[in-house]
Amino acid sequence: MSGNTFGKLFTVTTFGESHGPALGAIVDGCPPGIEICEADLQIDLDRRRPGTSRHTTQRREPDQVRILSGVFEGRTTGTSIGLLIENTDQRSKDYGKIKDQFRPAHADYTYHHKYGERDYRGGGRSSARETAMRVAAGAIAKKYLATQGVQVRGYLSQLGPIELEVKDWSLVDTNPFFCGDAARLEELEQYMDALRKEGDSVGAKVTVEATGVPVGLGEPVFDRIDAELAHGLMSINAVKGVEIGDGFAVVSQKGTEHRDEMTPQGFLSNHAGGVLGGITSGQTIRASIALKPTSSLRLPGRSIDVNGEAVEVITTGRHDPCVGIRATPIAEAMVALTLMDHLLRHRAQNADVKVETPVLREA
Amino acid sequence: MSGNTFGKLFTVTTFGESHGPALGAIVDGCPPGIEICEADLQIDLDRRRPGTSRHTTQRREPDQVRILSGVFEGRTTGTSIGLLIENTDQRSKDYGKIKDQFRPAHADYTYHHKYGERDYRGGGRSSARETAMRVAAGAIAKKYLATQGVQVRGYLSQLGPIELEVKDWSLVDTNPFFCGDAARLEELEQYMDALRKEGDSVGAKVTVEATGVPVGLGEPVFDRIDAELAHGLMSINAVKGVEIGDGFAVVSQKGTEHRDEMTPQGFLSNHAGGVLGGITSGQTIRASIALKPTSSLRLPGRSIDVNGEAVEVITTGRHDPCVGIRATPIAEAMVALTLMDHLLRHRAQNADVKVETPVLREA
Amino acid sequence: MSGNTFGKLFTVTTFGESHGPALGAIVDGCPPGIEICEADLQIDLDRRRPGTSRHTTQRREPDQVRILSGVFEGRTTGTSIGLLIENTDQRSKDYGKIKDQFRPAHADYTYHHKYGERDYRGGGRSSARETAMRVAAGAIAKKYLATQGVQVRGYLSQLGPIELEVKDWSLVDTNPFFCGDAARLEELEQYMDALRKEGDSVGAKVTVEATGVPVGLGEPVFDRIDAELAHGLMSINAVKGVEIGDGFAVVSQKGTEHRDEMTPQGFLSNHAGGVLGGITSGQTIRASIALKPTSSLRLPGRSIDVNGEAVEVITTGRHDPCVGIRATPIAEAMVALTLMDHLLRHRAQNADVKVETPVLREA
Amino acid sequence: MSGNTFGKLFTVTTFGESHGPALGAIVDGCPPGIEICEADLQIDLDRRRPGTSRHTTQRREPDQVRILSGVFEGRTTGTSIGLLIENTDQRSKDYGKIKDQFRPAHADYTYHHKYGERDYRGGGRSSARETAMRVAAGAIAKKYLATQGVQVRGYLSQLGPIELEVKDWSLVDTNPFFCGDAARLEELEQYMDALRKEGDSVGAKVTVEATGVPVGLGEPVFDRIDAELAHGLMSINAVKGVEIGDGFAVVSQKGTEHRDEMTPQGFLSNHAGGVLGGITSGQTIRASIALKPTSSLRLPGRSIDVNGEAVEVITTGRHDPCVGIRATPIAEAMVALTLMDHLLRHRAQNADVKVETPVLREA
Repeated sequence: MSGNTFGKLFTVTTFGESHGPALGAIVDGCPPGIEICEADLQIDLDRRRPGTSRHTTQRREPDQVRILSGVFEGRTTGTSIGLLIENTDQRSKDYGKIKDQFRPAHADYTYHHKYGERDYRGGGRSSARETAMRVAAGAIAKKYLATQGVQVRGYLSQLGPIELEVKDWSLVDTNPFFCGDAARLEELEQYMDALRKEGDSVGAKVTVEATGVPVGLGEPVFDRIDAELAHGLMSINAVKGVEIGDGFAVVSQKGTEHRDEMTPQGFLSNHAGGVLGGITSGQTIRASIALKPTSSLRLPGRSIDVNGEAVEVITTGRHDPCVGIRATPIAEAMVALTLMDHLLRHRAQNADVKVETPVLREA
Repeated sequence: MSGNTFGKLFTVTTFGESHGPALGAIVDGCPPGIEICEADLQIDLDRRRPGTSRHTTQRREPDQVRILSGVFEGRTTGTSIGLLIENTDQRSKDYGKIKDQFRPAHADYTYHHKYGERDYRGGGRSSARETAMRVAAGAIAKKYLATQGVQVRGYLSQLGPIELEVKDWSLVDTNPFFCGDAARLEELEQYMDALRKEGDSVGAKVTVEATGVPVGLGEPVFDRIDAELAHGLMSINAVKGVEIGDGFAVVSQKGTEHRDEMTPQGFLSNHAGGVLGGITSGQTIRASIALKPTSSLRLPGRSIDVNGEAVEVITTGRHDPCVGIRATPIAEAMVALTLMDHLLRHRAQNADVKVETPVLREA
Repeated sequence: MSGNTFGKLFTVTTFGESHGPALGAIVDGCPPGIEICEADLQIDLDRRRPGTSRHTTQRREPDQVRILSGVFEGRTTGTSIGLLIENTDQRSKDYGKIKDQFRPAHADYTYHHKYGERDYRGGGRSSARETAMRVAAGAIAKKYLATQGVQVRGYLSQLGPIELEVKDWSLVDTNPFFCGDAARLEELEQYMDALRKEGDSVGAKVTVEATGVPVGLGEPVFDRIDAELAHGLMSINAVKGVEIGDGFAVVSQKGTEHRDEMTPQGFLSNHAGGVLGGITSGQTIRASIALKPTSSLRLPGRSIDVNGEAVEVITTGRHDPCVGIRATPIAEAMVALTLMDHLLRHRAQNADVKVETPVLREA
Repeated sequence: MSGNTFGKLFTVTTFGESHGPALGAIVDGCPPGIEICEADLQIDLDRRRPGTSRHTTQRREPDQVRILSGVFEGRTTGTSIGLLIENTDQRSKDYGKIKDQFRPAHADYTYHHKYGERDYRGGGRSSARETAMRVAAGAIAKKYLATQGVQVRGYLSQLGPIELEVKDWSLVDTNPFFCGDAARLEELEQYMDALRKEGDSVGAKVTVEATGVPVGLGEPVFDRIDAELAHGLMSINAVKGVEIGDGFAVVSQKGTEHRDEMTPQGFLSNHAGGVLGGITSGQTIRASIALKPTSSLRLPGRSIDVNGEAVEVITTGRHDPCVGIRATPIAEAMVALTLMDHLLRHRAQNADVKVETPVLREA
């Protein structure tokens, strides 16, 4: 399997460049009989879409997705599902020097060396625009998972120096930051405005939770559920770190502090983030990602061109000063796709298993 | 592919329970003509082996590996390589209550629910003992990578609250901690002795570097090299977080601070950890992992048994108070296996690519 | 990896139902730098297209393929290639009883039981229409293989009782039968006309050859090149048998007769069909397939409906009386895709191999 | 995934050379809770074993298999199963010229070119000895399939010019030919004796049937069950052709003759061999393979050596004059492994499907 496929049983294969004619995906292995329509996918696509606030780029793509196969009379048929989004914002443009320059912290330099050929327009394949198809496919996974009682939801847990908690989940989708704390919105607005004025960018942290996950998902020793979540989440543009449960905080924890004790009433804590030995425990899965600051800056940076000559790079045009702001639906999609794939993998091998021990939840 | 295989072209498939008759692995896709012998593998196996200091468990397995195929007259033949380590420390023992109890923070509970059946002796398949085969396979990858100028090496970068740097790489392999700073060894010894007396355990952080990596490894958009490294590293027992380059520090970095500028003389910094757009940049790859504290404690913990009844669990026998101490060779192995796999994957697709732009290294 | 993907490194994933909005494919792992355009793909699509003679169905689809990604300024970029053919012949139609009946020898019954849901229009996913995307993807493989000196070409080697040889390869593409013997065309025409009048159908045999194949392709022990060719060819609709080289004739051959002796001037025969031990020998690869007679007949057949009740099925509308007639470009595509995938797989592992023994061809 | 793994969910990965220290396999993805022991595997290994009659080679390996993991207290645990057979017949021997010569119709020439390095002793990895591990793994699959009502069994259907039918299944395992017709045994004995005297060899045909197969196995469009069976069967040493159902006979069949009509009482015939549209129909699966004549002959053959010089090759030592004779258990194993893998794949996706239409069997 080449690099544009995610999953082993519920697989998503994508294509599409930032400024090419279209983006697309094929979702294979989807159980038949799921009610699904384009509007179901559009909900998450609209959440990810740029241009919906002054804090994100102004590219005004409708990102209208079409389902081209695998769904008949409103239900999945079990055959491969073709998805397509035509790029409508393909204004011809003079790319000038960008064509031959390597923007610092971008993939220009590595794509150039790897492939020799490169669609430099808007970053080509390395643009975060490809994540639209992850979100569309993830919406199908979410739809099925919901029928199994699994809910996947995320929020912005840190913006630069500002750490955030979810006080109210219903707030998360009502603001451009995916922030779950009304009291902090003003602070975020001001921070972003100052950042934009400065011409600089900043990193962010996004946290995703999955509730209602059945015990048993994950395929040790290599395809542990946490390893696969890490794979999926780290494959999102700009991600530099992944944590499960307490993540790096475990380094300085004591064993007595970290271990989640169990009683007949449930788990007494969830430092593990819902994973034990690489298998879901039935507790809430909690995963966080670190996103680096946007690399496209109007502040000049030193670089080289294709000839190895020194150049000064300035990125014009508007760019999100924090790519992390729009990452929440993408991170949710990757978590949903991973769980979906593992739900099917688990079921394949362990359909006959009968266990009488009760399943614990949080106490 | 089921969960006990790692890699797509250079694949490692493993088997073996902690107290079963043997551990084994099959390494497939190895290039022919590599000089390899059992002693090459034994070096890393001995680095990982328990019982070599008072800070690690006293299980005295020689962990003698045999090569059963794929090597003829001292060189790999390109056919699958069979590896075997017989378990010699299989003393029959009364497992008593352990059989029916779920130790907190262990995989007992999740294996029980997932499979119904479970080899409870010493943790069975979920024991860190399986990592021996990762280390053996990783040694083959290291051997080939070395012929390509790639070196993979790791060290303990934090033990509980004690943060560590490498002052001297040659020191790392001469102490049981994989510590690269002579001045801190005493502190580590004392911390561990206190911990053992206390009966508690603590977490750790291990950092791996790979130097001499060619530019171009990694298969976007899903099999980015950082995503695959995260997969491999997070699949190691007890790992709860993975960072590439600056990792979670990027959350509060500014774009001007994070971006690694380039000049004709090389990259001016390496916040990215050697990866841009999911593809190696030729800079040093730097990855860190967070390992949770050992779960086996003699301090009692609350849990349940297979009938859902409350029990108190005490783990007898000696256990490492910090599993992270022995994780360095394992983390190196996973990085080596990932790079090896991607070296082959890259070569498959891009063998014809000719690029005249010079490859930059650190300035 | 689900069932709609073919190949491991050069992968083709397809979607699309006979009467859905579109067919599509994603080709991943394609080497960068290959000159390719839509017209290159259209050539083979037009060869496969129905409605070009009175011997094939009259569905008049233009089958116009679009390349949506992975190609920039006329050359492949190494990123995934999106292909799309919109279905234009989607006349709304009354499907009447077909919806609930299982046509004998069709996939209606098995799809119904497997998935529960089924797009019954024109056979849905089980229609041979999906092979259009195989042909489009195969054209990309052919283009690359040609740059390596490999040529893949096929012909009709038997139609019902009429056995055929290639007397003139240039003739093959000039008649609707892919027949390479001018002297037999009249006989084929008459046989087909009689068959159509009769209302019955007949089977066929198609043979594909690949010349200029490098020695060394194939990955024993399971992914032998012959095993993979068999997989690809048997996956074509209506195929019931696959032969490599002499195929079933070997059953009654003696060892002295079958073995292809070698001299410094080359192989003295090619009973093996270019494969020894599952690896290409450098000789011409020869593979043949048996295609069953068309199942859609206007002559009534006994069957059941979704309720298990007896029904009589009559297929109206025009159908090819011999599906094998149009199978040649499809078989060529599967051979090309298999060789392409294995060229990359071989290169990945064995790039460093230097052998001084000369490569033999046919003497 | 490299070439020594078969299957996607129920995977078998093998290693081992003819004259190396051992053969081994890892079976991954096996459902937990299956009762299995070494004796279960030994039954089929003994059926495949050489040296049990004067018609097969005299290599007297006990082929004693050990289960090293994945089975605890007599039942599978769901973790990977390690299998090992030590080679005991490793007499040191002078390989003389064989080392540098390419035996006609053997894999010597292609392995040499592909890998550069080669274990020439007894054919190394290309020896049919590797099939022992297929048989061992297949026995596990058979054991599980039996719990689901599926039985896999094969027989010799042709030896050179002698065509054979099964008159009595209970006879098949009682003679060295896997012949199911008592009246023909004498003829087979005489034919083989004459052949051995002559110094020549001959081909054979083996047929495998699987009864009780559930409807629905197979993953179109590429992983159709017939395509996967073809893959598995063609991967057996010496196989040059695969047929499903009527196979190549369909070429001259009429549609009205070939189509298997259905009535509420069942299918009226089984020309399709139990597969419709790449999915099992619930009818008996029937697959046949063509095996080429043994290539090792004492009658001299022309060839070249590693320097490209002409040589005359004579194979000394005793060899089966018909490799097909021992192929029956191997072919059964590949069919069982394929069905097992697809049982799990089908279950993964379609566990929720409820269909009320009755399942038909043969009428």
